[in-house]
Amino acid sequence: MHLPNSIKKLADQLSELPSIGPRQAIRLIFYFLNQGQGFIGGLAKDIDDLKKLKICEQCFFIHQEVEGVCEICSNPKRDQGIILIVEKETDLLSLENTGKYQGRYFVLGDIPRTGALLDWQRKRLDQLKLFIKKELDGQAKEIIFGVNPTSVGDFHASILNKELAGLAKKTSRLGRGLPTGGEIEFADDETLGASLDRRN
Amino acid sequence: MHLPNSIKKLADQLSELPSIGPRQAIRLIFYFLNQGQGFIGGLAKDIDDLKKLKICEQCFFIHQEVEGVCEICSNPKRDQGIILIVEKETDLLSLENTGKYQGRYFVLGDIPRTGALLDWQRKRLDQLKLFIKKELDGQAKEIIFGVNPTSVGDFHASILNKELAGLAKKTSRLGRGLPTGGEIEFADDETLGASLDRRN
Repeated sequence: MHLPNSIKKLADQLSELPSIGPRQAIRLIFYFLNQGQGFIGGLAKDIDDLKKLKICEQCFFIHQEVEGVCEICSNPKRDQGIILIVEKETDLLSLENTGKYQGRYFVLGDIPRTGALLDWQRKRLDQLKLFIKKELDGQAKEIIFGVNPTSVGDFHASILNKELAGLAKKTSRLGRGLPTGGEIEFADDETLGASLDRRN
Repeated sequence: MHLPNSIKKLADQLSELPSIGPRQAIRLIFYFLNQGQGFIGGLAKDIDDLKKLKICEQCFFIHQEVEGVCEICSNPKRDQGIILIVEKETDLLSLENTGKYQGRYFVLGDIPRTGALLDWQRKRLDQLKLFIKKELDGQAKEIIFGVNPTSVGDFHASILNKELAGLAKKTSRLGRGLPTGGEIEFADDETLGASLDRRN
């Protein structure tokens, strides 16, 4: 079927997006078309508006403040000496949504599986070290490695631990154990083992 | 978490799309942001470009031709007297991709479950009737009701049959039976029954 070029081009783009395949891409496009020109123009504009967002100079999360630092980094009520390092922005959102954390964050981006940090990640990390030296007198109260509880996560935590050696009074990782609402019977050995090791 | 308004607005829009939920919407937005400004601008433009597409005056499928009629409706090699009515544009694409059909199409849009056609669907149907009267001397060679092989589809086919009574020498539906590559053992009763009724 000879589809119009504009559809083909957009379908190619959409099917590159995470968890969207070629079929869903086409389905989405016809959905857009059936919603009409106003919808299409609105969606295009809203996507384009993302360009206006800024990235916080300290934690590298997005923000829309006028100044260079986001609302968490500039909040005097939060403990700026405690730093939670996450890979994904969505991890930050999930953690922040718990309402349990009162420190600051640092978004490093996905660490490659090999563990070799990319250039821009190295630059971010340098910025973090500089921040700790200048603003926290050389040592953070605590650095939390907010990586996934997997063997890859363990590896990444060890890399970060080495990178930031001596820059924190204490380092930690997110607790492991039984997920709330889970059942002991169905927990895997690793999880159950962790729940015994860290019983409290 | 106080997310920037532009993200909230776009997330609301994206999570209304078929098979995209609120979580995936946020994930997509951060994916866009991590791809950078060039990607965001390009995606926005490609979506906006969909506005330039036209709808064929005869079959109501989208097209990018200069004239008012799409390449299938204006193709003299296709049998313009055989009309396959589909609800979704994606159904048309799937059928056309088989390479087995040499007639023309007619896109009616999703028929509401109640069976009561919407105003714009009625207008499309009126246009089809007019086409049959003017271009096909009052009778199509065949009208194929390309609705799903479900009880809702049966109902919709009966509505279309009534609407277009007398306007075709023959009406038909897509064949039912065992799907190619399927196994008899796992086929449901209805499908197996249809495969016996329509054995050939």
